[in-house]
Amino acid sequence: MPNPELKIDAERTLADLRELAHFGGVGSGVHRRALEREDVAARQWLCARMRAAGLEAQIDGIGNVVGRTPGSRRHILIGSHTDSVPKGGWLDGALGVIFGLEVARAVVEAGATGDLGIEVVSFSDEEGRFAGLLGSSVFCGRRTLENALSLRADDGTRLDVALAQAGYAGHPVAALDCDRHVAYLEPHIEQGPVLEQAGRQIGIVTEIVGVERCNLAFTGQADHAGTTPMSLRRDAAAALFEFAVAFAQYCRTEGSSSTVWNLGLAQFDPGAYNVVARRAEISIEYRDGSAQVLARIRDAIPGLAARVAATHRVEWNVEPGVRTSPARMDAGLMTRIESAAAATGAPCLRMPSGAGHDAMLFADRIPTGMLFVPSIGGRSHDISEDTHEADIRLGLQVFAAVIGDILQA
Amino acid sequence: MPNPELKIDAERTLADLRELAHFGGVGSGVHRRALEREDVAARQWLCARMRAAGLEAQIDGIGNVVGRTPGSRRHILIGSHTDSVPKGGWLDGALGVIFGLEVARAVVEAGATGDLGIEVVSFSDEEGRFAGLLGSSVFCGRRTLENALSLRADDGTRLDVALAQAGYAGHPVAALDCDRHVAYLEPHIEQGPVLEQAGRQIGIVTEIVGVERCNLAFTGQADHAGTTPMSLRRDAAAALFEFAVAFAQYCRTEGSSSTVWNLGLAQFDPGAYNVVARRAEISIEYRDGSAQVLARIRDAIPGLAARVAATHRVEWNVEPGVRTSPARMDAGLMTRIESAAAATGAPCLRMPSGAGHDAMLFADRIPTGMLFVPSIGGRSHDISEDTHEADIRLGLQVFAAVIGDILQA
Repeated sequence: MPNPELKIDAERTLADLRELAHFGGVGSGVHRRALEREDVAARQWLCARMRAAGLEAQIDGIGNVVGRTPGSRRHILIGSHTDSVPKGGWLDGALGVIFGLEVARAVVEAGATGDLGIEVVSFSDEEGRFAGLLGSSVFCGRRTLENALSLRADDGTRLDVALAQAGYAGHPVAALDCDRHVAYLEPHIEQGPVLEQAGRQIGIVTEIVGVERCNLAFTGQADHAGTTPMSLRRDAAAALFEFAVAFAQYCRTEGSSSTVWNLGLAQFDPGAYNVVARRAEISIEYRDGSAQVLARIRDAIPGLAARVAATHRVEWNVEPGVRTSPARMDAGLMTRIESAAAATGAPCLRMPSGAGHDAMLFADRIPTGMLFVPSIGGRSHDISEDTHEADIRLGLQVFAAVIGDILQA
Repeated sequence: MPNPELKIDAERTLADLRELAHFGGVGSGVHRRALEREDVAARQWLCARMRAAGLEAQIDGIGNVVGRTPGSRRHILIGSHTDSVPKGGWLDGALGVIFGLEVARAVVEAGATGDLGIEVVSFSDEEGRFAGLLGSSVFCGRRTLENALSLRADDGTRLDVALAQAGYAGHPVAALDCDRHVAYLEPHIEQGPVLEQAGRQIGIVTEIVGVERCNLAFTGQADHAGTTPMSLRRDAAAALFEFAVAFAQYCRTEGSSSTVWNLGLAQFDPGAYNVVARRAEISIEYRDGSAQVLARIRDAIPGLAARVAATHRVEWNVEPGVRTSPARMDAGLMTRIESAAAATGAPCLRMPSGAGHDAMLFADRIPTGMLFVPSIGGRSHDISEDTHEADIRLGLQVFAAVIGDILQA
């Protein structure tokens, strides 16, 4: 039975987005860290809004807010998050959740709740107050609730205490069901400048890049920087500077055209004008959509470090950090988004997502797709984050068309 | 009237050095910051020791301890310092002062106090609790006492308060008199590894190198290190790393064979794995015995900074810091030290001093010379600083011969 066309209401969607932004509002942005008071209030509001839309909604034992159109056996899962980084933007996460709410509401209003319905989720703690992608990790079974309960926030708060205070402790935990959930879709702001620079209004995410981090330390000898000839020094800082330049050069020539890397922090000990650095540490991060490229860069680091360490007669040590694998988006969903965008005449762009999203946990389980709307000036994770209203409207229109398309298939 | 040969007593000198090391003793080193309790006690002890040796001695209004052999119209000035860095070495400064005391004592004992006598000074605060080379700066008229009195130590102590507590406030200030002071000599530990590495026991300082410092800051834009393509970044850290490598390369190729430089501290803001650095600052220091070389390096910095800044589309700004000019030691005194060393059979080496010393303030006023003894492992400004006893004895013997030579001239 083909579903009727979804009648979405952009004004209502924008009104919901603006109302959600009052929770923890800070200037034009929001401060809504997972399970803090403002975040809990926003979850309660969202759950009530879902119920008012006719969804069966509840908040689960990790704080995920889950709302489902009634009467269906299978569901399209639409998710994102309503928590924010400290003093973050009003649309980061919220856009996808409210788009999902609007589409589900339209489905209910159209009486279109056939065999295939909609399930909307606001995942808990995507931004990592306790742990990044926490709610979606539990939802996908990548982390057990029991394992998560002893996590602590930077301020020392334990997750189990925060959940109890919110009133979510002991609630059943919602879970991914690959038989029931036919696809995962996540609309999101781009959080970067690519669409704006390219003059496109819709981004079709091809993959969420994998991220790898490590910490590289060089250890030499602290010496008087006046009395120690250059040839007798074991200068950890000099080794670090040469490594940093060589690493960037390696990524530029041996990475892919979309490889990005960052050496945004280095520390020196003792750290003085007149003392040769005994120890120098650098934080290394690199991202790419290809696991092969990530492995190539990872494998090159020891050789690059050893070469500069030998030059300066210092020791080196690399400590691995976070590693996530690239997540490929579903080709069929990419085509659907592209067709829907084409039908509106909106210029679109296939592009990788350089940022991580809840979607990355679904990509190897069910068909997963992401749609980006442009971020003004590429700003994100800051109260200055924003998207032109016309782009929000267009994104909603394209996204609803994609969902309608899947429902009708 | 030629003076009789000076009969110096190495045992007595070593005993004085060891007794002085009890004041503020910390393990094998000393913690004797200028005008703190231990330093004042050491000054009182030194003044008493000078008087016991037959010198006319007093402590002046800035804390300089000055002792003079009686009856002479002109004096050879022998100076160094008895204050230390926090947890410093037992011989840094102390060696020169006690060598001076021993030579003056030998002159008195020999009844050799003719027209040319000895004046020994322990300058106040060479190490810069209030200001580096403070006592010698006032002695040489480079800084007025009035100007100095409002200086503050890191702990907030004002110099005038510290001088009053020591009992030195209002004492007359001793001063350099170019008619009366025929030469300035300063024996000192090397504070570096050059003599030890070269297998030499006496260093003849050719010049005290000039030091220049500046702080270079690059300012770009903080961006998400995942979502911002490399081509759109304004990465202050990347500019800094390239500058550091280019600066070292410049010094290596365009400096002199004895140029030394240090980039021992850099700071990054906001400083995170996943945020492109908005601001990156590096502390630059370089030293050379030639004012021309220093000027060449100084003049090269803006060009090197501008080049990497243009590559990364960041702003740059350089803030000048400390600058001292190179101080040439007197050729005649160098020859006298070399001859005295040769007479003992001690292998010696002409070398620049990479560290600053009180002597640098005298070099353009009166003939100035410095004699170095080796530092074990080149260690200095640490309680591990030491010199083999045989090297102390040999240094004293050579130094006394130099003084005897000048007295006889």
